[in-house]
Amino acid sequence: MNITADSIWQDVREIRQKAPLVHNITNYVVMNTTANALLALGASPVMAHAIEEVEEMAAIASALVINIGTLSAPWVTAMAAAMKVADSRKIPVILDPVGVGATAYRTKTAEQLMAVAAPTIIRGNASEIIALVVSDAKTRGVDSTAIPEDAVATGKSLGRTSGSTVCISGATDYIIGEGTVVAISNGHPLMPRVTGLGCTASALCGAFAAVNPSGVQAAAHAMATMGIAAELAAESASGPASFQTAFIDSLYHIRADDIDRLLKSGIGK
Amino acid sequence: MNITADSIWQDVREIRQKAPLVHNITNYVVMNTTANALLALGASPVMAHAIEEVEEMAAIASALVINIGTLSAPWVTAMAAAMKVADSRKIPVILDPVGVGATAYRTKTAEQLMAVAAPTIIRGNASEIIALVVSDAKTRGVDSTAIPEDAVATGKSLGRTSGSTVCISGATDYIIGEGTVVAISNGHPLMPRVTGLGCTASALCGAFAAVNPSGVQAAAHAMATMGIAAELAAESASGPASFQTAFIDSLYHIRADDIDRLLKSGIGK
Amino acid sequence: MNITADSIWQDVREIRQKAPLVHNITNYVVMNTTANALLALGASPVMAHAIEEVEEMAAIASALVINIGTLSAPWVTAMAAAMKVADSRKIPVILDPVGVGATAYRTKTAEQLMAVAAPTIIRGNASEIIALVVSDAKTRGVDSTAIPEDAVATGKSLGRTSGSTVCISGATDYIIGEGTVVAISNGHPLMPRVTGLGCTASALCGAFAAVNPSGVQAAAHAMATMGIAAELAAESASGPASFQTAFIDSLYHIRADDIDRLLKSGIGK
Repeated sequence: MNITADSIWQDVREIRQKAPLVHNITNYVVMNTTANALLALGASPVMAHAIEEVEEMAAIASALVINIGTLSAPWVTAMAAAMKVADSRKIPVILDPVGVGATAYRTKTAEQLMAVAAPTIIRGNASEIIALVVSDAKTRGVDSTAIPEDAVATGKSLGRTSGSTVCISGATDYIIGEGTVVAISNGHPLMPRVTGLGCTASALCGAFAAVNPSGVQAAAHAMATMGIAAELAAESASGPASFQTAFIDSLYHIRADDIDRLLKSGIGK
Repeated sequence: MNITADSIWQDVREIRQKAPLVHNITNYVVMNTTANALLALGASPVMAHAIEEVEEMAAIASALVINIGTLSAPWVTAMAAAMKVADSRKIPVILDPVGVGATAYRTKTAEQLMAVAAPTIIRGNASEIIALVVSDAKTRGVDSTAIPEDAVATGKSLGRTSGSTVCISGATDYIIGEGTVVAISNGHPLMPRVTGLGCTASALCGAFAAVNPSGVQAAAHAMATMGIAAELAAESASGPASFQTAFIDSLYHIRADDIDRLLKSGIGK
Repeated sequence: MNITADSIWQDVREIRQKAPLVHNITNYVVMNTTANALLALGASPVMAHAIEEVEEMAAIASALVINIGTLSAPWVTAMAAAMKVADSRKIPVILDPVGVGATAYRTKTAEQLMAVAAPTIIRGNASEIIALVVSDAKTRGVDSTAIPEDAVATGKSLGRTSGSTVCISGATDYIIGEGTVVAISNGHPLMPRVTGLGCTASALCGAFAAVNPSGVQAAAHAMATMGIAAELAAESASGPASFQTAFIDSLYHIRADDIDRLLKSGIGK
């Protein structure tokens, strides 16, 4: 396993060439911004949540992104149905357990979905990853109250039991799976001040997983691309909203030499 | 039929003076951006989808915009109910069949809605317009895999059977109805890289149809105004997100001489 | 009662230090922008609407914001359940009666929710405040057709019967309660050209009420902060969309001396 600027760039180019269809069943808050991030990167997003059509949509998609940020019962049913199709077609499934631990309903739903099919990648903040494993852990809404380093051991345990690549996002992102821990230290302090950039990370994991069969590489490439685009965006941003705009613009423009120049990755165990 | 800068400008001024109420039953992804586009142009948008209130809202609106981008059963029921009221009041109805052809549910829903009342304007990309006519045509998510020129013959057929003005958007937009085909060649290559600009086009068709009784003129004026605002936006944009921002700003500022200077329209048969 | 730059700044600092969790059950159009406004100010927003979890979420929140902009029956049930929990915990509840008067369903829902528990703050435009009191008043969609001055007398009556602080927003905002009427004259004419800035005002009322036990102070501080951020934003904006971006950036950067320099408040009866 090696995360290099070349390996990231190869995936970005493939996404831009193939425009993989990424089926998102996601929350209301981020539908617009995650669709725009996927389009800017070069993927083709579709949002569809009705039980009447999710199976058919998942059947033509190249990746499925499940995000429980604004849950309700009909959506959970549809998420499970779409995951079953994705699993049978062996397309990658990304699970973003937004706010898990904040309410019993979110925790129960995340467990229920993970029982339907092992996600290829589970991406959450430190609090969320811990809440998936430690049944009485409490998160506070959707913002993390833990730091990623606190969650690495728990993330390894989650990876073993789930079979999923576990991606913990934060100041440093840790991607755990296939016997390694990849650390990506790109990014910018403004990121947690923009709603839904975690959800965007999960959506981008979907695009990268659509072109890269390794869950660890896909997640690491997604997080590095996110972080580098954020660093480029910060050069011109004057606050969180102009940062979000510049971030999407950067995803659209990102080039091999940006990645080469800015990538900060490390490999551990 | 003549599409001139003067005829477009007259409608823009009337929208700004009257602020027509445009009732949107639309998808989650674009609710914010289409509301902002309508406000920037000068219209007054309202989003309401509950069966308990759609009839009453459609009863005070000057136009109804129906968009099936993120369908579910209760929304379809409400769309049909609102269309019935709009039809009985003879206010214009715009149908945006987002992703029709991608799933049977979307195709069936579009057919069901068109059976409730003939839309004044049907606006879609080439793939969607073809999928409305050719029952086994397949679209891939919500992005077009065909070019507008492929869909003109099918669009004419759709116009004959439905009685609707058919508006096919793409690099060149074709507006078909009242015995003519109007071509609008304004716009910018960044447009398909922003989510929901097709949906925005449909929403603007609603605003123009609220002040112009000709479906063809309303759609052509909307597409020209979209395209010209996009060209103005591209002058200052540095990527898809700053382009979206500048596009809304341009809709707010657009002037008679912008239209006069930039309009690229043609009339055929 | 005194609304000073110092008292506003104290609240802003406390929000930034404590990052109070603000639970929003709000409309689809504004979920992203209100979450971003709360984050930019320093609060921690969460959106959750499922009956399965709203009580638990309201039980960990520091404020609850209820916004009826895109209603449907399951959401109304959840709003009532969350309000009951908030009331029993004595955390502030903000009610934004979007479009009340436009349909009977909105009017009935607003009444039903106000019967569950007296909101700490009711914030609406002039048309909405009048429609809450005058049963046959008609609003036209979600934009106000009255000016705030028309609604002050009605707002006083609403305050008396409901026990709530009443906040009427417009060119001048009037905050009514605790025996006084506070007038805030900050703001910018572009504000009504951006969708959901009224909803943002209500969300910010939630953040301020989370740190300030006086409903009148919380609402007045929120409206002043909104208006001053808008004035700062207008300095660099070139239309409604760049104004929205700059407004969020300004909320993030707002400083004591901005408030000191720009605050335009007055107290009456």
